[in-house]
Amino acid sequence: MPNLQPPIVNTEEALLYKAQLQAIDPTIEYLMTLYLSPDLTPDEIRKAKQSGIVVKSYPRGVTTNSEGGIESYEVYYPIFEAMEEQDMVLNLHGEVPSDPTSNTCVLNAEATFLPHLVKLHKRFPKLRIVLEHATTRAAVECVKSLGSTVACTITAHHLDLVVDDWAGQSWNFCKPVAKFPDDRQALREVIKEGHPRFFFGSDSAPHPPDRKSVSSPKQACAAGVYTSPILLPLVATLLESFGALDKLEHFVSGFGRAFYGRPAADERVTLRKTLHKFVEDSWALGDATVVPFWAGKQIGWEIVSE
Amino acid sequence: MPNLQPPIVNTEEALLYKAQLQAIDPTIEYLMTLYLSPDLTPDEIRKAKQSGIVVKSYPRGVTTNSEGGIESYEVYYPIFEAMEEQDMVLNLHGEVPSDPTSNTCVLNAEATFLPHLVKLHKRFPKLRIVLEHATTRAAVECVKSLGSTVACTITAHHLDLVVDDWAGQSWNFCKPVAKFPDDRQALREVIKEGHPRFFFGSDSAPHPPDRKSVSSPKQACAAGVYTSPILLPLVATLLESFGALDKLEHFVSGFGRAFYGRPAADERVTLRKTLHKFVEDSWALGDATVVPFWAGKQIGWEIVSE
Repeated sequence: MPNLQPPIVNTEEALLYKAQLQAIDPTIEYLMTLYLSPDLTPDEIRKAKQSGIVVKSYPRGVTTNSEGGIESYEVYYPIFEAMEEQDMVLNLHGEVPSDPTSNTCVLNAEATFLPHLVKLHKRFPKLRIVLEHATTRAAVECVKSLGSTVACTITAHHLDLVVDDWAGQSWNFCKPVAKFPDDRQALREVIKEGHPRFFFGSDSAPHPPDRKSVSSPKQACAAGVYTSPILLPLVATLLESFGALDKLEHFVSGFGRAFYGRPAADERVTLRKTLHKFVEDSWALGDATVVPFWAGKQIGWEIVSE
Repeated sequence: MPNLQPPIVNTEEALLYKAQLQAIDPTIEYLMTLYLSPDLTPDEIRKAKQSGIVVKSYPRGVTTNSEGGIESYEVYYPIFEAMEEQDMVLNLHGEVPSDPTSNTCVLNAEATFLPHLVKLHKRFPKLRIVLEHATTRAAVECVKSLGSTVACTITAHHLDLVVDDWAGQSWNFCKPVAKFPDDRQALREVIKEGHPRFFFGSDSAPHPPDRKSVSSPKQACAAGVYTSPILLPLVATLLESFGALDKLEHFVSGFGRAFYGRPAADERVTLRKTLHKFVEDSWALGDATVVPFWAGKQIGWEIVSE
C-alpha cells in the first residue's frame, strides 16, 4: 500500500485509507503500512504502532550516501530504533536499484540487497523484519541464516515462473523478476521443508490489460501479475505439483499470523480437487476487466462455496 | 538462413535460395549456409564447398546422447572432419536449450554451451568456427583463449541492451537475450581492444509488428530486433559511445572478411556525424511495415548518399 501515488506516509493517511477499504469490504482485517521515507519520525512510529500499522521500505528507501556512493539505511536508524522498541514489523522490498556502472540489474538486484538485510538485522536484532516476495536461493539461504526476527514471504507466481516465462512475455513480468530454475527450486524446497519463517505473500497487481500489453517499443509494461481471484486454488495446485500440499495451511495462514503476532484464523476455507477447472480468461473488477495470472490454464483446486 | 521453415539442408536448396535473393538485389554477395542436421553427409559438404557454402548449427544441433543424457556434437564428427578438410566455416548459435531440471534457461544458455565449443575446437583445431552473436563475458573470454581458427560475432543491439531493457519490453527481446551490464561491458572492451577474431554480425530480424507486440498472456513474442535500416550508423553511434569509433572499419568489415578469407572490400561507405537524425518510427519493407530498433531515438551518424 505505500506504493500508492502519493505514498501513505503517516498514521492519519493510513487510517483514512483503511476506512475506505473497510467501506468496500468490512469483513477483511486490513494491516496498514507506512512508506519508509526521510519524513518519517520516531514519534510518528509510536503513533502508528497504537493503530497497528507496520512500515514498508521500497528500493528507493535504500539511500545513497553522497560521500562514498554507498547505499545505506543508516539515515533511518532512529526510525528502526523506535520500531524495535515498539515491536513494529518492517517490510522490505529487497532490491537495489539497477545501475550499469556497478553491474546491478533486475537479475541481481535482490542478491545485491541481502548484505543490507544482514547489516540491519545485526544492528537491530529484535526488530521484526519481513523480506517480501523473495525470488532467489541466495535470499532463502540468507533469511534462514538469520535470527528468529527475520522472515520472508514467497508469492504464488514465483513458485511457478522462471526467466524464460517472462522473456518476450510481458504478462508474466513482475518485480522482482522471476529468476533461474534453481532459484525457483529453492523457494519450493523451503516450503516443502515447512520452515516457519517462510510464508505466503500474494503481491497481486490488478493492472489493466493495456498496461500489461506491449504494443510499441516506447511503451513500458507495468510490473506485476494478478493472482487474487485464484489465489488459494493456485497455491494449492503449485504446492501439490512439488509435493508440499500438506504444508498449505501453515504456509498461507499459520506461519504468517504467528510471525505478525496475530491470533490464529477463526474462519476456515475448504478447497477441493477438481479435474474440470480452468482459470477465467478475464475477470471483472468494478467497471474494469483484468486478466488473471494463468488465464485459460487448467487449475487443480477450487474453493468450496460456503 | 538455415532457420527458414523448412530449413535449407543441401546445396541445391541453398543455390536456389541464393538465386531468389540475387533476383531481389544482385549487387550483394550472398554467403549461403546449410543447416546442420543428421541428414547432412560428408559428400554433401564437399559439394557445398564447391559453391562457397558454410554450415550453421542451431541449438537443436547439439544433440542429446540417448545413453547418458549428455548433449553432444559427436554424431556430427564425420561432417566436421569433412568441413575441416574442405576448410569450410562452421557457424554456431551457441546456446543450449532451456531445461529446468539442469537449471538451464535463457540466461545461462550461452555459458552452458561454451564447453561444447572448447571440445569441438580441441578435436578439430583446423576447423574454422564462428561463435555467433555472443552476449557474455564468459563467451568473450572463452573465444579469446582458443586458437586462431575460432572467431566470434557481436551484434549492434547486444552492444546497447542489458536485461533491464527487455524485461517487460518485448520489442527488445532477442535470442540470445541481452545479459548483465558487465557482459555488455566485455563485448565493448574486446571491440575497443581491436581483437581481430571479434567482428560484427547483424542478426537483424524484420518481424512484423504483431509478432513483436504482446497483447495477451497466450501470445508468444518473436525473438529478434530489426537493425538493418540503421546498421552502420547504429554501430558507429555505439562504438563512439564507448570510445571505439576508430575500430569501426575493422569491426564491421576487415576482421570478418579476413577470417572468412574474402578479399578486402572494394566499395567504400562514408558516414558523417549528425546532431539532427532520429530513427524512423517505422520502415516500409515491401508491402509490410516493420518497426526498427531504436525507433524514434536520436542516432549520431548517417550514411552520406553516393
